[in-house]
Amino acid sequence: MTEQPMPTLHDIIAARPNVYRYLKPTPLHYYSGLSELVGAQVWVKHENHQPVGAFKVRGGLNLAANLTEAERQAGLFTASTGNHGQSIAFGARAYGIKATIAVPEGANPGKVAAMRGLGGNVVVHGKDFDTAREWIMGQAEAHGGRFIGPTEERLICGVGTYALEIVEDLPQVDTIIVPVGAGSGACGTSIVAKSINPQIEVIAVQSAQAPAMQRSWQRGELVTAEMNTFAEGIATRVPFPNTQRIMRRYLDDFVLVDDADIKQAVGLMLEHTRNLAEGAGAAPLAAALQLKDRLAGKKVVLILSGGNLSMEKLKGILSTYETH
Amino acid sequence: MTEQPMPTLHDIIAARPNVYRYLKPTPLHYYSGLSELVGAQVWVKHENHQPVGAFKVRGGLNLAANLTEAERQAGLFTASTGNHGQSIAFGARAYGIKATIAVPEGANPGKVAAMRGLGGNVVVHGKDFDTAREWIMGQAEAHGGRFIGPTEERLICGVGTYALEIVEDLPQVDTIIVPVGAGSGACGTSIVAKSINPQIEVIAVQSAQAPAMQRSWQRGELVTAEMNTFAEGIATRVPFPNTQRIMRRYLDDFVLVDDADIKQAVGLMLEHTRNLAEGAGAAPLAAALQLKDRLAGKKVVLILSGGNLSMEKLKGILSTYETH
Repeated sequence: MTEQPMPTLHDIIAARPNVYRYLKPTPLHYYSGLSELVGAQVWVKHENHQPVGAFKVRGGLNLAANLTEAERQAGLFTASTGNHGQSIAFGARAYGIKATIAVPEGANPGKVAAMRGLGGNVVVHGKDFDTAREWIMGQAEAHGGRFIGPTEERLICGVGTYALEIVEDLPQVDTIIVPVGAGSGACGTSIVAKSINPQIEVIAVQSAQAPAMQRSWQRGELVTAEMNTFAEGIATRVPFPNTQRIMRRYLDDFVLVDDADIKQAVGLMLEHTRNLAEGAGAAPLAAALQLKDRLAGKKVVLILSGGNLSMEKLKGILSTYETH
Repeated sequence: MTEQPMPTLHDIIAARPNVYRYLKPTPLHYYSGLSELVGAQVWVKHENHQPVGAFKVRGGLNLAANLTEAERQAGLFTASTGNHGQSIAFGARAYGIKATIAVPEGANPGKVAAMRGLGGNVVVHGKDFDTAREWIMGQAEAHGGRFIGPTEERLICGVGTYALEIVEDLPQVDTIIVPVGAGSGACGTSIVAKSINPQIEVIAVQSAQAPAMQRSWQRGELVTAEMNTFAEGIATRVPFPNTQRIMRRYLDDFVLVDDADIKQAVGLMLEHTRNLAEGAGAAPLAAALQLKDRLAGKKVVLILSGGNLSMEKLKGILSTYETH
């Protein structure tokens, strides 16, 4: 069996003009309050400051920039719990392409409204993400259009541009902690970090209530798992082979944190940085608190991947959160 | 009586290198949800994305860059409800200067912790901002140091740099709405907007529960007023002559909004932009909703001046907020 090629540092560098044509680099801020809590020097990479509130928009822009004329004409088809769909809608709009996005029933209403606000043709279908995805793949085929899965190489290379910004802003970084849904962020981050300096440690995190990607990585084979996390950005039931393959090569570790700890981290992030994190975006802080001993004194970057938490979830979290 | 000179567009342009040595331009994002609510095209200038969570940090950097060697040696003295103090602490730290900051009893604990995290020497003194200010002015004199009021020209010029970014990112802007505490933001904004294009309308906003600056501007004389707003960033009891003078020349209008409407705007801002706004930062949205008829169809920029809302205030606001 011949090995498929993997995206490289060079591919990610090549994605930068496609990203910066529409977006600015996001800030990397140091927080003394989080640093005290973790017992390390803690910076946050603010991908929640992106126009759609999440890192994925970088990927959509790189993908759209690389389509053939025939692909543009046929339009893009995808499935999403929210941020990936916003990314595709944003990228498609930038290049005047039609995007059809399937979302599962009960999808985050703010994310659905945002996809529509970006001109995306949103169709609600199926009880979970994977059902919506299977349906829209059939639609794409029927219409002769391109189905965009969340782990396409162009997406990985686009999102990897945030990791280049981290290494440029903080060359001394010791550890980067990144949440995993489909894995594009963890792949982009670890390709960049390891290619530039193998000493930079990259740790991925997922919810213990949706551990399919973590278990697959740990076992070295694709296994499905329960999917009961409140955090839709990291709610994966069926693992993605493409990102698993890359993560097996580049990732240092992959940990699980409990949903209850992620909710607590949403509160801590608000209190100490005044930034709203969705569950996925707060998971790296939950992981850092769990790994305190290992991180002691290090320079740690937490990827705040997105801020699209629904108001209902925020209210629920704050109703039990104790200010420190 | 000879007129004192006023800061000019040129002074604000000259402040840019002092600001960009440490900070990046902040994003100006368009929000379809807010645009629907207001019935206009609505952008938000995200000064809450600054490292200290507020626009004032630009001013502190410009001030610190322009000190004499003797002033640096003696250190800086100031009083603050929070954001101004963080700005001075940030600027002082960048240049290795000592900053002593008086805060009133009951000051926002997150802002106080942030000032200390930046190395500021924070002293709690007096029941309100003006009492703390009078005390620290005496301290500055006793120690031969420089007292930094919140309306110094160097501060106005530093914060005015965000207005240049707005006009560069959205040259077609029709109206900018800016909150007023001491007035440095409104002065910087209106000097820039009116000097570049007198057709750009600049509207200031304050709480009806703390209207000293608005009443003084409207009457053309300095009047004190009640100060009962929950929003400490716009809680001014005694008006500032320096900023009043500039606002009288450059500002188009100055409106009041009720605290209840500001609280509602904090919720709307969270729901539609996923950004936490403190009361001052949400006041422009409250004003836009009050001025819907006048703004219909226009390109409107709201200054989200800062995001340093305490967790207790956020909890209180969300407990009664109805998601839309």
